[in-house]
Amino acid sequence: MNAIAGYTFGTEQVTHSPLTLNDLELLKQTVLFTNEDERYLRLAGEVLEDQIDAVLDVWYGFVATNSHLAYYFSNAGQLNSDYLTAVRQRFAQWILDTCNRPYDRDWLNYQQEIGLRHTYAKKNQTDRVEATPHIGMRYMIAFIYPIAATIKPFLSNKGHSAEDVENMYQAWFKSITLQVTLWCAPYAKDAYF
Amino acid sequence: MNAIAGYTFGTEQVTHSPLTLNDLELLKQTVLFTNEDERYLRLAGEVLEDQIDAVLDVWYGFVATNSHLAYYFSNAGQLNSDYLTAVRQRFAQWILDTCNRPYDRDWLNYQQEIGLRHTYAKKNQTDRVEATPHIGMRYMIAFIYPIAATIKPFLSNKGHSAEDVENMYQAWFKSITLQVTLWCAPYAKDAYF
Ligand code: HEM
Ligand code: HEM
Repeated sequence: MNAIAGYTFGTEQVTHSPLTLNDLELLKQTVLFTNEDERYLRLAGEVLEDQIDAVLDVWYGFVATNSHLAYYFSNAGQLNSDYLTAVRQRFAQWILDTCNRPYDRDWLNYQQEIGLRHTYAKKNQTDRVEATPHIGMRYMIAFIYPIAATIKPFLSNKGHSAEDVENMYQAWFKSITLQVTLWCAPYAKDAYF
Repeated sequence: MNAIAGYTFGTEQVTHSPLTLNDLELLKQTVLFTNEDERYLRLAGEVLEDQIDAVLDVWYGFVATNSHLAYYFSNAGQLNSDYLTAVRQRFAQWILDTCNRPYDRDWLNYQQEIGLRHTYAKKNQTDRVEATPHIGMRYMIAFIYPIAATIKPFLSNKGHSAEDVENMYQAWFKSITLQVTLWCAPYAKDAYF
């Protein structure tokens, strides 16, 4: 596999999350995330592995047809397709990471990094592009719905029982909620997170 | 019906949301909220109406058994049961409002009010209690999962088809995502929302 440009998971370039592993544990409890969810995410990883391009086509289609979202990949009203392509590879890797990585200190740090890359602090830097400087927190949180819901049909494409599909979907939904929560840390006022 | 203490929906006491109705429209688009979802929320309202106490028992049970959450209804480690009871009535009304109210300017303003009531700005004031002064944004966002997921069994308690139940559940999930998004506005740094 070629290295993915700008994907710095586990390296020293990644920022440090201000959260402790205990903070993470409490958040996992809050979204009811258990070892069983971890197992269903691994299964989802197998199911999604060869469908990632199709998943990304759905999400990119959604962004492209909503001008208030396409705006964030644009400069002066012009969509930057190099930017879209560069991010797409990290997005694909993120789907695999969501399913397969342990949610440990490295993972927690990279969540902070992803959050920052959506904000004034770091957006556009990784791909050295000129584009809208910041993604409003409102859309980060709102995206929980489409990112959770649109995965379900893909989870049922490999002949798993309705119960397994539902369990994979719930594990995915919990993980997305958890990750978006972590990504919003840099958006909050001091002591508000 | 007796007036609910502290429930100020539609009155002059409610703060004004900084969002425009167009901002709300874009958020509805982002969570894929349509007129059909509105219809399914109305149906959910009928289904949930006489089960609200049971729903609240589940949610309160979840808060009570998680000390990091019970903390927000407590003062010096002591749970304040008057506070829990006062909020419970507004919570019950909120379930009905989520299902039955039009999402208009009054509704938008009350979302800002609810958000503020979870923060340093307004928490504890409505019920004139002494308790933890602020609920961290992390738990607001994380709560999307339990508040969405735990409603599903209640939606299937009245003999509706699996398809209707699923549609009510999705409409509910969209609405929760939308509302938590709006509630997080007061948490964000200036120009970050
Ligand atoms: C559930 C919500 C979201 C998920 C799961 C998600 C996922 C991701 C991932 C995995 C990356 C790459 C991270 C990396 O650099 O390794 C990324 C970057 C990016 N996302 Fe999101 N995202 C979300 C919300 C949004 C929203 C609402 C927008 C607005 C259209 C958006 C636009 C972007 C852009 C422009 C980048 C590139 C940032 C940069 O310049 O480095 N994302 N996103
Ligand atoms: C999806 C997330 C949440 C929902 C749907 C929700 C719902 C509500 C509602 C409807 C009210 C009453 C609003 C009114 O005054 O009319 C309220 C108040 C309250 N909620 Fe939440 N809430 C959420 C997150 C949380 C979290 C994470 C906690 C922490 C345990 C919490 C604790 C409280 C407290 C203490 C109050 C009373 C605030 C005051 O002093 O006025 N809520 N909530």
